[in-house]
Amino acid sequence: MAYSEADLQGRKYAMSLMQEAGLQVRIDAAGNIVGSRPGSDSNLKPLLIGSHIDSVPSGGNYDGDVGSLSAIEVAQVLHEKHLSLRHPLEVLIFQNEEGGTVGSEAIGKGLDERHLNLVSQSGKTIREGTQLVGGNPEELASARRQPGSIAGYFELHIEQGGNLEREKIDIGVVEGIVGILHSDVTVEGFANHAGTTPMDQRRDALLSAARFIEKVNQVVTGVPGRQVGTVGWIKVEPGAYNVIPGKVVLGLELRDLDETKFTGLFAQLRNEAERLAQLNQTRFSFTEPVINHPALTDKGFQKLIDESARSLGFTTKLMPSGAGHDAQEIAAIGPVGMIFIPSIGGISHSPKEFSRPQDVENGANVLLQSVLVFDKTH
Amino acid sequence: MAYSEADLQGRKYAMSLMQEAGLQVRIDAAGNIVGSRPGSDSNLKPLLIGSHIDSVPSGGNYDGDVGSLSAIEVAQVLHEKHLSLRHPLEVLIFQNEEGGTVGSEAIGKGLDERHLNLVSQSGKTIREGTQLVGGNPEELASARRQPGSIAGYFELHIEQGGNLEREKIDIGVVEGIVGILHSDVTVEGFANHAGTTPMDQRRDALLSAARFIEKVNQVVTGVPGRQVGTVGWIKVEPGAYNVIPGKVVLGLELRDLDETKFTGLFAQLRNEAERLAQLNQTRFSFTEPVINHPALTDKGFQKLIDESARSLGFTTKLMPSGAGHDAQEIAAIGPVGMIFIPSIGGISHSPKEFSRPQDVENGANVLLQSVLVFDKTH
Repeated sequence: MAYSEADLQGRKYAMSLMQEAGLQVRIDAAGNIVGSRPGSDSNLKPLLIGSHIDSVPSGGNYDGDVGSLSAIEVAQVLHEKHLSLRHPLEVLIFQNEEGGTVGSEAIGKGLDERHLNLVSQSGKTIREGTQLVGGNPEELASARRQPGSIAGYFELHIEQGGNLEREKIDIGVVEGIVGILHSDVTVEGFANHAGTTPMDQRRDALLSAARFIEKVNQVVTGVPGRQVGTVGWIKVEPGAYNVIPGKVVLGLELRDLDETKFTGLFAQLRNEAERLAQLNQTRFSFTEPVINHPALTDKGFQKLIDESARSLGFTTKLMPSGAGHDAQEIAAIGPVGMIFIPSIGGISHSPKEFSRPQDVENGANVLLQSVLVFDKTH
Repeated sequence: MAYSEADLQGRKYAMSLMQEAGLQVRIDAAGNIVGSRPGSDSNLKPLLIGSHIDSVPSGGNYDGDVGSLSAIEVAQVLHEKHLSLRHPLEVLIFQNEEGGTVGSEAIGKGLDERHLNLVSQSGKTIREGTQLVGGNPEELASARRQPGSIAGYFELHIEQGGNLEREKIDIGVVEGIVGILHSDVTVEGFANHAGTTPMDQRRDALLSAARFIEKVNQVVTGVPGRQVGTVGWIKVEPGAYNVIPGKVVLGLELRDLDETKFTGLFAQLRNEAERLAQLNQTRFSFTEPVINHPALTDKGFQKLIDESARSLGFTTKLMPSGAGHDAQEIAAIGPVGMIFIPSIGGISHSPKEFSRPQDVENGANVLLQSVLVFDKTH
């Protein structure tokens, strides 16, 4: 977990590996670890590779680590083989990805005061945590990079879904990172005695909410595509066996690679809610949706990764990333590409998270190959 | 709230009114206030009237108080008019009705160690609270009364539902107090990433639970009758926007005057749950249902109350009580009758609880008339 003792130890270990790989290691003002390797052509912008090493509480050992350690391994191989690249290479270990892609956002769009004051899972604010890991929150602007200042960014990551394993595909070529819409939905009915209020006189907020949850599923699965919709939490007031629920609040999430798709579904759900409200004499209200925009990967990078993987004998599949990644932030300053390897059972953010050693090796080889091909062709 | 400072003050006030009404006042070992008035025929068993004065947290001013103060008023009228009854009369203010008809159960079926150790809303155990209000938990057996030891019990109460007001009926004659079934329903799915898990690969426990809540409504309203079914609370794990719910627990309650009816509906709901489980690859389990059996009022008492009310010019309606009352406990030791007056808007257990002064007066007059008629005819 970011800003924990384990995070500090993990960062120290990663930095020692980076030094062994011949990288010049520093911590930027945003607390990201940056390992640099010079290129032979001083006119070229740097190529970035990397990921994160922080985890969610009770998370697994592959989310972030696979991409970070593979990026270091790429540098290690170049170092051992005395291979010189034309582009400068930077290996980045972004800080606190799980708390909202903090380190990579500081490099991309930049962080503001509001971000710095957010309390992270560790109990520390982003400001305190950034300081703890060796950054300087007062000098954040120095960590930010200008659009067009990098040649590109490649990130290897576990899929965190079960598609590659189910379809027996070696490598996923990521089309983009889906956008996310969050809105809190409040259903108001009337809390009354569950024994004395006849069924036809009730304004049951939980019954209306249940019908809405069913509608979310129907609406999201009612059109073709890979969009997803989830109600992940719900709160009922007053919340007793013998009281008809008077108020329910629930958390709605919609995701897709196409923002017009999920905003359209959201509008449709608001209409459905109106109908349910009338059916059950309840009232629906929605908080202003909070939207993370989709981040598309570079078409050329998709092709480059796909061809690199195939040249190594791997099967590939073009797919969206349903989860957020540092790459979505780096997309603000240059072209990005992402490589997925299978997650067994599609399980992630759990101690049961697992990717086979062979798949990790495959991913690292595709990352190396992509870097080499990029360096030759760009 | 029972065992609060307000409870102690309310009890003190009620006892002073009872003394003014010429009653001989004592507190029994269970903490109930008992006000006695001798009868002229020493062979007759006592007739009981009364209710409770404790409230739920954030409750109203009518639930319990109307019946308690009207019972005292009946004694007051008899006292003022120097009317002698053949039967001894007892006015009872039962302790902690809202915490599970504690005082009246001690008189009826009796309390055991398990009851005494329960923690009430006040934070005190029933044992501590009983002691606080002047009872003696070590001598509880002395408060218990034998079946057949009373001539009968009449209780006036607010309806707590909206039927009388809606139908413009003055007095409800209670057929019985409904039985209640509680069961906690657990729905198990699989918690997974809400972004990376396709819709057709989900085992969403909340979606299954939502469908079950809809089924409760369908099954309960699918057959004729006055039965009710409620899901009043729900808990979701892990409970985040971005995680598909892996586990849901919800509280199911069914009520009816006929126990075979609600146990039948429960069996039907278990079957429906099996179907939903298969549909959505989730697992349903139900805790062993906890059942409060229905308590029927005495047919002769129903007739007596109905005729007494009509003789005073009131309209009446035979109806079940959807809520629990002290009368259900006293039914264990003798015949009981209950009188309802309208609750405006059917609102109860709320500061908005209200019954019109005229309705309270009507109820008290029907209680008095019933006592007088009973005393003459029994």
